[in-house]
Amino acid sequence: MLVKHGIAVSPGVAIGQSMVLGAESFRIPQRFVSVSAVDAEINRFRISLQAVCTEIEENERVARERLGNQYAAIFTAHLMMVQDHRIVDEIELLVRQKCFSPEFAVSRVFRQYAKKFQNLGVPYLAERATDIFDLEKRVLRQLLGERREELRNIQAPVLILAHNLTPSETASLDKAYVLGFATEVGGTTSHTAILAGALELPAVVGVGNFLSDVAGADTVIIDGSHGAVIIDPDAETLARYRAVEQEHRNFSNRLEAIRTLPSVTLDGVGISLYGNIEFPHEAASARQRGGEGIGLYRTEFLYLDASAEPTEEDHYRSYCEVLKAFPDRPVVIRTLDLGADKLPIGFRMEYPEGVNPALSLRSIRLSLQHLDLFRTQLRAIARAACHGDLRIMFPLISTLLELRQAKMILGDVLEDLEEQGIAYRRDIPVGMMMEVPSAAIMAEQFAREVEFFSIGTNDLIQYTLASDRGDPRIANLYRAGDPAIIRLIQIVVKAGQSRGIPVSVCGQMSSDPLFVPLLVGLGLRQLSVTPHLIPEIKELIRKLTISKAENLANRVLRMETANDVESFLRGEHRKLSPESPA
Amino acid sequence: MLVKHGIAVSPGVAIGQSMVLGAESFRIPQRFVSVSAVDAEINRFRISLQAVCTEIEENERVARERLGNQYAAIFTAHLMMVQDHRIVDEIELLVRQKCFSPEFAVSRVFRQYAKKFQNLGVPYLAERATDIFDLEKRVLRQLLGERREELRNIQAPVLILAHNLTPSETASLDKAYVLGFATEVGGTTSHTAILAGALELPAVVGVGNFLSDVAGADTVIIDGSHGAVIIDPDAETLARYRAVEQEHRNFSNRLEAIRTLPSVTLDGVGISLYGNIEFPHEAASARQRGGEGIGLYRTEFLYLDASAEPTEEDHYRSYCEVLKAFPDRPVVIRTLDLGADKLPIGFRMEYPEGVNPALSLRSIRLSLQHLDLFRTQLRAIARAACHGDLRIMFPLISTLLELRQAKMILGDVLEDLEEQGIAYRRDIPVGMMMEVPSAAIMAEQFAREVEFFSIGTNDLIQYTLASDRGDPRIANLYRAGDPAIIRLIQIVVKAGQSRGIPVSVCGQMSSDPLFVPLLVGLGLRQLSVTPHLIPEIKELIRKLTISKAENLANRVLRMETANDVESFLRGEHRKLSPESPA
Repeated sequence: MLVKHGIAVSPGVAIGQSMVLGAESFRIPQRFVSVSAVDAEINRFRISLQAVCTEIEENERVARERLGNQYAAIFTAHLMMVQDHRIVDEIELLVRQKCFSPEFAVSRVFRQYAKKFQNLGVPYLAERATDIFDLEKRVLRQLLGERREELRNIQAPVLILAHNLTPSETASLDKAYVLGFATEVGGTTSHTAILAGALELPAVVGVGNFLSDVAGADTVIIDGSHGAVIIDPDAETLARYRAVEQEHRNFSNRLEAIRTLPSVTLDGVGISLYGNIEFPHEAASARQRGGEGIGLYRTEFLYLDASAEPTEEDHYRSYCEVLKAFPDRPVVIRTLDLGADKLPIGFRMEYPEGVNPALSLRSIRLSLQHLDLFRTQLRAIARAACHGDLRIMFPLISTLLELRQAKMILGDVLEDLEEQGIAYRRDIPVGMMMEVPSAAIMAEQFAREVEFFSIGTNDLIQYTLASDRGDPRIANLYRAGDPAIIRLIQIVVKAGQSRGIPVSVCGQMSSDPLFVPLLVGLGLRQLSVTPHLIPEIKELIRKLTISKAENLANRVLRMETANDVESFLRGEHRKLSPESPA
Repeated sequence: MLVKHGIAVSPGVAIGQSMVLGAESFRIPQRFVSVSAVDAEINRFRISLQAVCTEIEENERVARERLGNQYAAIFTAHLMMVQDHRIVDEIELLVRQKCFSPEFAVSRVFRQYAKKFQNLGVPYLAERATDIFDLEKRVLRQLLGERREELRNIQAPVLILAHNLTPSETASLDKAYVLGFATEVGGTTSHTAILAGALELPAVVGVGNFLSDVAGADTVIIDGSHGAVIIDPDAETLARYRAVEQEHRNFSNRLEAIRTLPSVTLDGVGISLYGNIEFPHEAASARQRGGEGIGLYRTEFLYLDASAEPTEEDHYRSYCEVLKAFPDRPVVIRTLDLGADKLPIGFRMEYPEGVNPALSLRSIRLSLQHLDLFRTQLRAIARAACHGDLRIMFPLISTLLELRQAKMILGDVLEDLEEQGIAYRRDIPVGMMMEVPSAAIMAEQFAREVEFFSIGTNDLIQYTLASDRGDPRIANLYRAGDPAIIRLIQIVVKAGQSRGIPVSVCGQMSSDPLFVPLLVGLGLRQLSVTPHLIPEIKELIRKLTISKAENLANRVLRMETANDVESFLRGEHRKLSPESPA
C-alpha cells in the first residue's frame, strides 16, 4: 500500500481500477495479465513497428524527391535506429520474459538508448537524444492511437491517474466510466479542478510524481475530500473507505430532503443560492438541487470544447438552454474569459518572452482586442435575453476605462440589433467580476457604473497575494482566509451596499462551507456555488443567525494571518455541523 | 531613413554605428564593405565549414564507437546536408555577387532550406527543419565565435541593436564603447531597462521586429527620452539630434550646480533622496550626484553576474564597498530577489506547467526555501553592518507569517555569529518592501513589526492591476497613475505615519519627475531613485511647497482613471519645469 498526498479539489471517495496516462500524454499500461497473450502482444508490437517504418520510408521518399538525397539521409538514419535489432530484441525480450506491455517496453528501451546519447558528455551527441524520443513517440502512437480518442472510449469504470489533464480532456471524460481522477500537477482552482467539481468526480491534484509507482489496473482509492491517493490499499484501508463511501451516500440522501426548503438563516434573512456552471445542461442540475438561478455561466467552454469557433447561433442556443431551466430566475452570463490557462483548441496565443499569461492579455482584455468574438457573444446574449432574466457580467475588469469601453461596445451591439430589426432586450442588466485588486480598491467608483458585482475569489486571491493558484510550492500563500482578502471582500460589499447594488461571491470560496458563515457575516446575501454543493451550503445557512455571523466576521477582521482565520473558522464550522462526514 | 518606436527606458540621445545581434544571439553583419575582400571572406567561410565538418565527423566517430552504426548515421546525414554543394555554391555566390557577409549568406541560405522542409506539408518532414537550424547555428558559431565574448570585446563605439539582452549581458556591456541600445522585446521595468538606467545608457526596448531593417555599421540614432530608433537618418534629422545631444549636455551641466544644495521644498521640508543601485561601484556615483544614502541595493546582481555562487565573503566585500561611499549614511540592502525573470546563470528554476513565474516561487519565497543562500547573505549583512548604517529589507513580503519567518531566520543567524564570536551588529534595522497588494492592504499590521517600509511600485502595479510589466499589449493597464495604485500608496504612507516608521518609494515611479510632486503630496519624505536622476529630482523638489503638493494629491485622489491622473500631472509638471529638455 502506498499513500500519496495532493490537493483535494472535488470531494467524495472513488474506489476502482487505475488507468494511467503518462506525462507524454500516452496511456502506458505497465503489464498485461495473461502469459498466453505474449505472442499476440509481440505481434502487435511488430505491426506497429512496421507501420512506423513505412511512415519513415514514405517521408524518406518525399524528402528525396523534393529536396534531394542529402536530406533523405536523415530519415534513413531514423529508419536504421528504429530497426536496430538490439533495440527490437530487447523490447521483445521484456514482453516475453516480464510480461511488460509492448508500450511499456518500447518506452523503457528507447529511453535507455536516449540516455546513452545524453551520457556521452558531448553536447552535439546529447542533443540527438531528441531524435530517439521522437521515434519512441512514433512507435507509441502506433501502439496506442491518440490519447483523446482513448479517453472518449473508456469502456469500463476506471480512476484516471495522469500527469495532467487539460480542461477539455477533463470535459470529455465520460461520467459513466470515470469514477474519479488524480493528477501530478495542478492547484485548487485550476480549471481542471473546477471541472471536476462540475462533473462531481472525486479528484486530487498536485500530487507530485507518483505515476511511476502505479501500474494500469492497480486498485486505487481517490479520497477527494482529504486529497489522498492510495495505491494498492490493504484490506483494512479498503474496508474503511467503503464505509466512508456509504456515509457519503447517506449524507447525500439527507441533503436531498433539504432541497425544497428555503435558503434562510435562523433569523429569517434570505441568502440566495445560485449555481456556477460550465455547460448548459448543468443548469437543470442546479435547479434540481434547489438553486435559485445561475450566478455564473462560464461561457468559454463553448470555445474550449469546440473544434470550430462557435457562431452567434451556438451562443444563442446555449443561453436559451440555460434559460429553459430558469425561465423566470436570474441567469448571469460571464463574457469570455479566455487566455492564460484557458485557450480554445487550435487557438495559439503568443505571449511575449518572459511574460506571465495570468498577468497578460486574457479575459475582457482579449475580448476588447478581438471585437468580432466579443460582439458575437454580446449579440447572442442580448437576443436570448428576450426569453428570461439574462444578465451580462464582464470578467477581469481592472480599470473604469475598461468597463466603460466594454459597455460602449454593448451599446453598439444593441444599436445594430435595433437597426436590423432583430428581437433583443434593451435594458439587460450589466455587472462585473471583482477579481482584480485594483477594481476591489476602487469598488465605490465602480458601483456607480454597474448593476451588480460578483466577487471572483480565485483570481482575487491569486493577484492580491501574487500567488499562482496552480503552484503547490506556494499553496501556503494562496489562501482564501488571508486577512487581506477578507478586507477586500469587505470593501466591495460595503461599496455595493452604499450604492444599493447586489454583491455576490462566485469564486470557490463561496462553495466552501468553512467560509460561508464569514461571507454572510461580511454582509453577503447572494452566493453562487458549485451546483452539487447547493444543498450542503443551504443546510449550513439554515443553522446561522445574522448576528452570530456578524460577530464571527468582526472577530475574523481582527486576525492577522490566514492560519488564525482558518483555524478559527474550522472550530466554528465544527460547532455548526458536527455530523458532516469527516 | 526609417523611424521605429518603442518604449523609452533610459533617457538621452545616442548617435553612432549599429552593431546588430540577431534573435539567435549571433551578431550577423549583413554586408562587408570592400569588394577586394571577397576572396578572403569566402576563404573564411570555407574554413568555418571545414571546421564544422570535422566536428560532425568527430561526433559521428564517437557515436559509431559507443553506440553503433545505426546511431552514427544521423551524423552522416548531417554531414551530407552541410556539404550539399547546392547550399555551398549558393552561399559563395551571395558573398561574391552581393558582397553579403558569409554569416548573412549562411543564415539566409540555410533558412531557405529549412523553409523548404517546413513547406512540404508533412509534419514529420517539417520537424526536421530543426536539424537545418542546428547546422546553421554550428556554422555561424564557427564564423562568429560565441556572442558573449563578442559583447565583451567591442573595440569601437557602437549602438547595440538586439532582439533581447539578458540582464547579465546588459551588465557586461562596456560603457566606454557601447553608446546605447535598442531591443525588439522588453518592457519599461524589465531588469534590462533598469540596468540601462544604472549604466546611464540611452535605451529603447519593445521596438518590435526591426532587426531585419538594419545592417551592421548603419548610422543609427537611439532617442532614449522618446523611445525612438532612427535608422539611416537624413541630414536634417541628424543635425536636429546633434542639437538635442548638446542640449542634454547643457542640462546636465546646470544640474551639476545643484549637487551640493540640500533637497528641501520651498517651505523648508526635507525630502531625502537616496540611490537605487545594482552594483557596489554605483554607490560612489550616487554620492557624487548628491544622494544621501542608498535606499535600495539590489543584491541579486551578485548572482546574475557570477559564474559560481557568491560566498559570504563576496557578499561582505560588496556591502563594505557600498559603505565606503556612505560610511555614515543609511544603506538599505534588499535581500535576494531572485526568481521569475531574474535567475543566476546556470541556475535552472522549474516552474510547474502553466504556472506564472511572477506569481510563483521568487524573491523572499525562494530565500525562505533555500535557507543556505539566505543565511549566507544575512551573515554577510550583519557583519558588514559593523562598518556603517546598514539596514536589511525583505522583498515581496505577502503575509505577516512570511515576515515573521524571515525575521526569525535573521535572529538565528545573529545568534550563530554571537556563538562563533564573529563581529556583527545586533540592532540592525529591518524593513520590508511594500510591493504585494496583500501587504499594502495590511500595512497597519505590518507597521508594528518592521522599522521601515519601502514601496516597490513596479511589482505593486503589476500585481494590483494584474498586468505584466513586460507586455506592451497591456501597457495601457500597467500605469503608475492608476487611482488604485495611488490609494494603496496612501494606505501605506498613513500606516507608516501612524506607527512612526519611515516610508520611502523605490520603484521607478519615484524616479519619474511626473510623479514626484504627487508622492510628496501623499506624505512621502524619502525617495530612492536612479542615481543619475538625483539632481533632476532634487531640482524639482526645490520648486515645490508641501501645501501645493498636498493640494495636488487631494485633487488626484478624486480622479477615476490613470489617463486623468497622468494628464493632470503632466500639466502641473510643465508649470514647474518649463525649461527641461523636450
